[in-house]
Amino acid sequence: MSKTRQMTLVGFLQAQNCSNYVGSWRHPGSATDFLGVEYYQRIARSLEHGKFHMCFFDDRLAMPDILGDSHIEAVRNGVRVVKMDPCTILTCMGMATKNLGLGSTYSTTYYEPFHVARVFATLDLMVGGRAAWNVVTSLNSSEAHNFGEAEHPEHDLRYDKADEFMEVVLGHWDSWEDDALVVDKDSGLFAHAEKVHKLGHQGRWFRSKGPFTVPRSPQGRPVIIQAGQSGRGRDFAARWGELVFCVYSSVEMGRKQYKAFKDQLAAYGRDPDSVRVCPATYIIVGETQSMAEDKRALIDKMAKPIDALALLSEALNFDFASKPMDQPFTDEELKNISGLRGILDRVILLSGNKNPSLGDFVKYSKRGTIGEHPCFCGNAKQVADQLEEWFNNCCDGFVFAATELPGTYEDITRYVVPELQRRGLHHKDYKGPTLRDNLDLPKAEIGDWRLKS
Amino acid sequence: MSKTRQMTLVGFLQAQNCSNYVGSWRHPGSATDFLGVEYYQRIARSLEHGKFHMCFFDDRLAMPDILGDSHIEAVRNGVRVVKMDPCTILTCMGMATKNLGLGSTYSTTYYEPFHVARVFATLDLMVGGRAAWNVVTSLNSSEAHNFGEAEHPEHDLRYDKADEFMEVVLGHWDSWEDDALVVDKDSGLFAHAEKVHKLGHQGRWFRSKGPFTVPRSPQGRPVIIQAGQSGRGRDFAARWGELVFCVYSSVEMGRKQYKAFKDQLAAYGRDPDSVRVCPATYIIVGETQSMAEDKRALIDKMAKPIDALALLSEALNFDFASKPMDQPFTDEELKNISGLRGILDRVILLSGNKNPSLGDFVKYSKRGTIGEHPCFCGNAKQVADQLEEWFNNCCDGFVFAATELPGTYEDITRYVVPELQRRGLHHKDYKGPTLRDNLDLPKAEIGDWRLKS
Repeated sequence: MSKTRQMTLVGFLQAQNCSNYVGSWRHPGSATDFLGVEYYQRIARSLEHGKFHMCFFDDRLAMPDILGDSHIEAVRNGVRVVKMDPCTILTCMGMATKNLGLGSTYSTTYYEPFHVARVFATLDLMVGGRAAWNVVTSLNSSEAHNFGEAEHPEHDLRYDKADEFMEVVLGHWDSWEDDALVVDKDSGLFAHAEKVHKLGHQGRWFRSKGPFTVPRSPQGRPVIIQAGQSGRGRDFAARWGELVFCVYSSVEMGRKQYKAFKDQLAAYGRDPDSVRVCPATYIIVGETQSMAEDKRALIDKMAKPIDALALLSEALNFDFASKPMDQPFTDEELKNISGLRGILDRVILLSGNKNPSLGDFVKYSKRGTIGEHPCFCGNAKQVADQLEEWFNNCCDGFVFAATELPGTYEDITRYVVPELQRRGLHHKDYKGPTLRDNLDLPKAEIGDWRLKS
Repeated sequence: MSKTRQMTLVGFLQAQNCSNYVGSWRHPGSATDFLGVEYYQRIARSLEHGKFHMCFFDDRLAMPDILGDSHIEAVRNGVRVVKMDPCTILTCMGMATKNLGLGSTYSTTYYEPFHVARVFATLDLMVGGRAAWNVVTSLNSSEAHNFGEAEHPEHDLRYDKADEFMEVVLGHWDSWEDDALVVDKDSGLFAHAEKVHKLGHQGRWFRSKGPFTVPRSPQGRPVIIQAGQSGRGRDFAARWGELVFCVYSSVEMGRKQYKAFKDQLAAYGRDPDSVRVCPATYIIVGETQSMAEDKRALIDKMAKPIDALALLSEALNFDFASKPMDQPFTDEELKNISGLRGILDRVILLSGNKNPSLGDFVKYSKRGTIGEHPCFCGNAKQVADQLEEWFNNCCDGFVFAATELPGTYEDITRYVVPELQRRGLHHKDYKGPTLRDNLDLPKAEIGDWRLKS
């Protein structure tokens, strides 16, 4: 690794009533104007002050209503029940910033590839080449039911479909060659017709003809974010991801998974250094260690048991009120879990149980608590030490989830960022106007995403 | 009509490389940065300076490639070949304005109702209650082919499906009662669960369960724009439209159609005065009449025959290179025209031919030229006189299409708006923060869109 290797910093956002941490909305410092644009633009400005490379929005197409087959407790307790369109909010954040990269989740299972291609290509033009798309296959039957489907499709099938979805989207993004546009009023020549191509995709899942109707952006095309954690999901991430968001439980576990993933990239003929791997972490920083620990204790208290149960039911597409907490899952039940299989893999690994119980899921996934991700807590130097250790061992940067909003990002920007910059671990300023500039990626070329072999 | 009756002014926008008038991009004054946000924000600011009530974006989900079964000439000549996502651009315009109403087309044929409901509800929150949705059923097979369909569905069927689409969208928008949110950190009560409702829609075309994930906005819900022109389309507009965009060839024809439409509203049990009917017009204004006429002559020269043929083929979903120009359409061919049937009705009416030829379509639709809509040309007083005549006879306001950008809207704001304000025909300032405030509509109530009978 070269001396100048620097971290990639990413803000992990939700277009909802709380951060990733449900308890955040109950925190005394959390802003409550989450239905207004100022809330999101304030976060965007904080991230840009901290020279974050980018932020991205997670998404769900339903509120959590699998637990007990009801939305009632989720609504009452504010368990991520507001879910707004993330691209709309991201666009607003783009208008309040100049350099921050802007990513959003859109689903390959419930949206159409032409539409997804057009939304992100348009956003990429409007923000001068700062857009990124976080590719997800969605989670559960609640989402299926909002989109007219009886059931959420089976896990690996979703990824097969997503592979084809990617070919359509990236194919459309390649439609207009970079020098296709002429716009010569005198001659009346608008564009070189031979440089604008039909896609003519006819696959198993999708057909889309083109030509696509949006020319290329200053960065060529949006950056692809991916967060596949399961076996099939990691394979998908290795094939398509340019920034990969992951969950590592510890630096030891991360080291193994990071290496394995970089090997997977190489196996696809991709340059492992060109893909940033960024684990999710919480940061709680204070002026002193004890002040940070006090903060953490307060934050911890904001979680309620209902948060974990509602979110686990949502993520695993399984009703956690449907069986006793200590009864192990049967092999058949485990096979049918179709949501975030990465959680299942992690719970099996950490619990040592091939057939974990509901209680094991609560205990080892730590979903709904800040224990779900590594939490780096302390004064600025202590937090920077932990980040540096991880950075030197198992990642290329971090996706920072928030314990409260906008506090977490204001604190990171105020305390942690200057310390990282002092150590040369974080850039002092943006390198260029586009997200690819700031990720040290070249402008995307037409067809460069196709496998060589 | 009361003395204080004032016009509703609307800007008719395209998220593309030209205005409605294809020749506009060839105009010497047209800005060429149509791929960047400044282009659209500049237009938005002009409209807001002129106290326009709103603007809205038209849309197509494909470039015009039906003529000669090829996109080549359309690309070469810039015939609306760039088509970006209008909601993304509209959001950017919302960030540059405080009062302007913001409308966009989204298709009921190629999009999912849950998604459309969420995008517009989110936008409505982010812009403080200024959003509007222009409901269209889309046009042609080029769009179908981008979205995986073999053919564009038949005309009346599309509207049947659209009716159900509206029930899903409006049903979702009613999910959260206005006082559902509590957000009490101390008690941990986020929202009253009994005030957040599942939709549970199970229809012929759509199923969508809910609860919807976006609470209501300051104006209750987005305003519905509709532009149905055919028999079935007008019926749809009378059922759902709150601002209705139309094409009247003359004040005489307009008077009849306006009255008939207002009667249709009443037949649905709706208050005819609560729905604004706004015909499309071009405005060419100059310091003097002769300067305006010189402008018009120059603008007229910007049209090319290819524009008309490509756009007619697109709008009628019929290849205008496939038969001789003077050969009448057969009854069978006319029956199968599935695009904008309003154009067909108008051409039959104006030509007096029950079986018009391609040439009749070019001549009487005037598509691709500024003759397509009434063009009010002259100095400020002359333009205002014509607007006033129409306003007193056959409409509640106007949808202004642009002959060049941003020139048209800067000119209207500079010359025509002050004259209309002097006459008391246009408001001097916005009445309130929301679009419904400025359209003199009350805040939308839950269920008020359902038919009484």
